[in-house]
Amino acid sequence: MKKRRKLGRGVAVVGAGMSHFGMFKDRDSKDLFAEAFKEMIASVDKGFDPNDIDALYLGNFSNDFFIHQSHWGPIMSDLIGMTPRPATRTEGACASSALAFREGVFAVASGFYDMVLIGGVEDMSKCTTEEVAEGLALATVPYEGSVGFTFPGVFGVIATAYFAKYGASREHLMNVTIKSHNNAPLNPKAQFKVSIRDLMNAKIEKAKAFGNPPPEWQDEKDFLRDPRANPPVAWPMHLFDCCPISDGASCMLLVAEEIAKNFTDNPLHIIGLGQGSGRCLHAAESLTSFEATRRAAEEAYGMAGLTPNDIQFAEVHDCFSMAEILHIEDLGFFKAGEGYKAVEEGLTALKGSKPINTSGGLKCKGHPVGATGVSQLIEVWTQLRGEAGPRQVPIKDLRIGAAHNLGGTGGTCTLTILERR
Amino acid sequence: MKKRRKLGRGVAVVGAGMSHFGMFKDRDSKDLFAEAFKEMIASVDKGFDPNDIDALYLGNFSNDFFIHQSHWGPIMSDLIGMTPRPATRTEGACASSALAFREGVFAVASGFYDMVLIGGVEDMSKCTTEEVAEGLALATVPYEGSVGFTFPGVFGVIATAYFAKYGASREHLMNVTIKSHNNAPLNPKAQFKVSIRDLMNAKIEKAKAFGNPPPEWQDEKDFLRDPRANPPVAWPMHLFDCCPISDGASCMLLVAEEIAKNFTDNPLHIIGLGQGSGRCLHAAESLTSFEATRRAAEEAYGMAGLTPNDIQFAEVHDCFSMAEILHIEDLGFFKAGEGYKAVEEGLTALKGSKPINTSGGLKCKGHPVGATGVSQLIEVWTQLRGEAGPRQVPIKDLRIGAAHNLGGTGGTCTLTILERR
Repeated sequence: MKKRRKLGRGVAVVGAGMSHFGMFKDRDSKDLFAEAFKEMIASVDKGFDPNDIDALYLGNFSNDFFIHQSHWGPIMSDLIGMTPRPATRTEGACASSALAFREGVFAVASGFYDMVLIGGVEDMSKCTTEEVAEGLALATVPYEGSVGFTFPGVFGVIATAYFAKYGASREHLMNVTIKSHNNAPLNPKAQFKVSIRDLMNAKIEKAKAFGNPPPEWQDEKDFLRDPRANPPVAWPMHLFDCCPISDGASCMLLVAEEIAKNFTDNPLHIIGLGQGSGRCLHAAESLTSFEATRRAAEEAYGMAGLTPNDIQFAEVHDCFSMAEILHIEDLGFFKAGEGYKAVEEGLTALKGSKPINTSGGLKCKGHPVGATGVSQLIEVWTQLRGEAGPRQVPIKDLRIGAAHNLGGTGGTCTLTILERR
Repeated sequence: MKKRRKLGRGVAVVGAGMSHFGMFKDRDSKDLFAEAFKEMIASVDKGFDPNDIDALYLGNFSNDFFIHQSHWGPIMSDLIGMTPRPATRTEGACASSALAFREGVFAVASGFYDMVLIGGVEDMSKCTTEEVAEGLALATVPYEGSVGFTFPGVFGVIATAYFAKYGASREHLMNVTIKSHNNAPLNPKAQFKVSIRDLMNAKIEKAKAFGNPPPEWQDEKDFLRDPRANPPVAWPMHLFDCCPISDGASCMLLVAEEIAKNFTDNPLHIIGLGQGSGRCLHAAESLTSFEATRRAAEEAYGMAGLTPNDIQFAEVHDCFSMAEILHIEDLGFFKAGEGYKAVEEGLTALKGSKPINTSGGLKCKGHPVGATGVSQLIEVWTQLRGEAGPRQVPIKDLRIGAAHNLGGTGGTCTLTILERR
């Protein structure tokens, strides 16, 4: 990268909302987006007129496949009463709505629009698990899909390579899972609001209630080691290393910086934008580092004039426990080969020095793929505004947070840095 | 719309290329995009280094459905050696690549990037015709698809309403078809390079060669009236009212206006951008006018400070003959209910006062849906630079042309106005 990127006109976030994440058999993409949109409207401190929204950018991976409907821009535009204002869908696999955010920023920074709604949605639970696996595989590159790779297999290979290179093991992956499950009960929107310890104890109590011999689990890792509780998916990825199938929606309101104070005294400023593309697994120089993430980070840190140390907390794309470790290294939070140690030492816990995935992450908050990128940014918004309640990061003068979103097996990556001033 | 839109930084087109359009059983999306990219490189008058391209925007409707592969941004980025630079897919049904163009413009106008490649691709011919119809129906709104509408049905309903309202008939639709087939033989990239007259004569000669009684067609309309030559699809849409199934790719190079002269002495300036969304057929106020097109036109003319009369020629989204008539009215080139008369009088012919679809249009050039929007802009580029050869518009001082792209059954519309200075 040859130059430091900058925007000709500053852009701020002044509102945010998301639906509950989960598997909702009786709620579709429109229901979920309406829920997110209503919460966003209520979040704008000084209020605003939704008729002033100039355009919509919506991230969606493949409702084409999941529910046999594409072209979601105008459907959502109609739903929220925006017709005939423009609505554009972006797609970058699981990073689809981080791309919508970026395009919304560019549209405002270009001077063309002043107020843009961005968001994301995905409707996955109406498929069978096999169909979801098939649908998600549309995001892998052809050379991976054609040899039978699905996502757990890809991250299983990556974990195996990481273990061999750095001496880590499944025990270290478990630390990521336990941390995510500790954060999620503090997030009312999360799909799995239960700690591994509580889940373990509940299963023990259930066995007793049925008069069965209770499993002899001493601690959370005992539970996660037991294949009856945590069966293998694609070694070394077990069930609790994998994010779930989810439905959900998310949105944010972006405005030109010069009018942000009309909406709130507490806007967030977009100080770092980065995106990269990668050649995916079949052509990666290394199995334990994503080129697209490194590029996105370089671009975003460059624009912000910051180093990884300046990022006080982050949401990081933990589609698998292994992914979180990989990314916190690629983003420069920890050195290559040391991410798993940082997690083990508790540095990435809610009260650690670099809290990661305070929302519960994709693992527990859920991963409706098109909605995920913006939902990560909403966690950053919530934390930076001091509105995270029991999961509030206890760092004094919390000013700078980031969200990292991955699409495919390293094909698309974004890093977005927000600042409270 | 409350304000006149403008860009904080001007953007220019300095290169363009497209693949041949057609049904290519042995060529995939990558082959076609490589062909377009190579032609684009050669088109940049003063040359340039492709390593300087900052980002890619790629329109694709649903290769998800057609060839079971999504996430085309990084695949194409890898193909043309751009990795790890960012690559984003946009989707707005058949307007997908006009949206890519817009996002490329915003990315440069925002100041973030200086040089952006935009394009589109679709790979449709590997499906059966029934599958293509099913795939395209993903772009209709759910209320239409669930009652069995496919695209020919939608435009059949529109044509029926138009006939009833304005006294037009199938004879008038035929004028659109005949015009498109007159232009296409002059376009070496077109899928159907044959006039209706030549097609008719060829069939007569063939019958004679086989010793059969030749059909008694006196002129092109006789041919188009004959259901043996032109069978009904969804009344009054017959085969020759409908664009074909196509594969193809297209791309353009956008740069900041202040550096355009480094690339060519003959850049085109983006003076009008417009996009709108619509409620589609189920909730349209009128069946004979698209709200999204009117909104896109208002935005684009407003930005350019122009009226429809200032547009010297245009590419218009003729997925069906009826659509072309509808759009030239909605765009303000002719009054409502008078578009069919204008076509009949030859005003939209190559040598008419307002040439429409000099490329042969979607009907004859082909309609690889994700590639179409940019391919329309490439026709505008070719004409404005005086490089259209035998199909060059014979208007003196040709300076301003426009491309109109429709997605779905009126869900997404764009109008883009280019100027040669």
